[in-house]
Amino acid sequence: MGAPVSAESRLAELGITLPEVPAPAGAYVPAVITGSLVYTAGQLPFVSGSLPAVGRVGEGPGLVASDDAKEYARIAAVNALAAARSVLGSLDRVTRVVKVVGFVASDASFTGQPGVINGASELLGDVFGAAGAHARSAVGVAALPLGSPVEVELVLEFE
Amino acid sequence: MGAPVSAESRLAELGITLPEVPAPAGAYVPAVITGSLVYTAGQLPFVSGSLPAVGRVGEGPGLVASDDAKEYARIAAVNALAAARSVLGSLDRVTRVVKVVGFVASDASFTGQPGVINGASELLGDVFGAAGAHARSAVGVAALPLGSPVEVELVLEFE
Amino acid sequence: MGAPVSAESRLAELGITLPEVPAPAGAYVPAVITGSLVYTAGQLPFVSGSLPAVGRVGEGPGLVASDDAKEYARIAAVNALAAARSVLGSLDRVTRVVKVVGFVASDASFTGQPGVINGASELLGDVFGAAGAHARSAVGVAALPLGSPVEVELVLEFE
Repeated sequence: MGAPVSAESRLAELGITLPEVPAPAGAYVPAVITGSLVYTAGQLPFVSGSLPAVGRVGEGPGLVASDDAKEYARIAAVNALAAARSVLGSLDRVTRVVKVVGFVASDASFTGQPGVINGASELLGDVFGAAGAHARSAVGVAALPLGSPVEVELVLEFE
Repeated sequence: MGAPVSAESRLAELGITLPEVPAPAGAYVPAVITGSLVYTAGQLPFVSGSLPAVGRVGEGPGLVASDDAKEYARIAAVNALAAARSVLGSLDRVTRVVKVVGFVASDASFTGQPGVINGASELLGDVFGAAGAHARSAVGVAALPLGSPVEVELVLEFE
Repeated sequence: MGAPVSAESRLAELGITLPEVPAPAGAYVPAVITGSLVYTAGQLPFVSGSLPAVGRVGEGPGLVASDDAKEYARIAAVNALAAARSVLGSLDRVTRVVKVVGFVASDASFTGQPGVINGASELLGDVFGAAGAHARSAVGVAALPLGSPVEVELVLEFE
């Protein structure tokens, strides 16, 4: 009733269990704190250590469908929250989602990046409510690590 | 004579009227404040709700010319300033343009991204003077939302 | 013996002399300080004013080999440190490498961006030790300024 919603409670209500933090794909760490901000590494949509799909997003044979890619963006955002929690202890400390950058491996004719990255944005709104409203850039790139169709990074403010 | 130039005055002198903040293309907001920083969403060169051109930048038939793309980068930067003012109230509060990232939808053979994004950088210099000097990355991407040739995001410091 | 390692001493031990800051490729500056953070511009692997190679990274004729690109990412990171030192005076003031974004101009079939950007990440670990552990995004893009195979930008925390 007017009290801020607990992000951890919302995760539970949504039936989301944050995974183990995926091992970084290189010589870096999943998330770093500086001042009142957490920067996460770019996250791929790993599920139990594997990518659910590889390839570029677009319409046509051999491409990843946009609707599927939206779900992968949601999974990448969940992994980014796991990365953030690994340095914060609890997502209840998050006071604002500041910035999302979403990279979509895109067929040259595909321009629906916003709809794909909405998979991440909507998840953040579900978990954080008004504090989940963020600035965002969505771009279509040539290729992503390991062939991932999407990559999502976050900047979060916390107390 | 030595007093800081007012960014709002400079905009007026330049004949620039900031537009209504373009509606975000997805489930996010145009700009977010954290501490003394404003992060804008990636902005497209909307003019009265429409993109002036779509496609990739390069030389040849069917491509967007570099000079045109530079103008679009300028428009995207104006839209980013509108986004920033929507959360700051006045651009006179801006003390420094910290960072610009410019994405250019690029034909594979086009490597003139710096010249394109100079459209944004020069506008920021015109508006903010010395405080407009920023760090910047310019990259050529496969595709951008709605087919936009350019996308520009800003990090601004304010008081 | 337990005291923090001096980044400047480490550079010397590694035999690295930071170059003159490469001139920006456009209307911007090499690095900007805001609060306790330094944002560098995206850096190319300039050596004495020239790029050691141009083109996209991948396997096959006419492409830049991944191992070579990794070395170029290292050089770009060295240039980014030069940019940071130009505003900090000394890299001994750096308390944490917060974020690295690495752009790799990629052939559509190349998905080894993490291995390439490890060239930057490993250099930062060598110079800063534990304080060099950073969040990172690595993405494959269509083209980079001047045809560079890689571009690296940093966010550093300092005192």
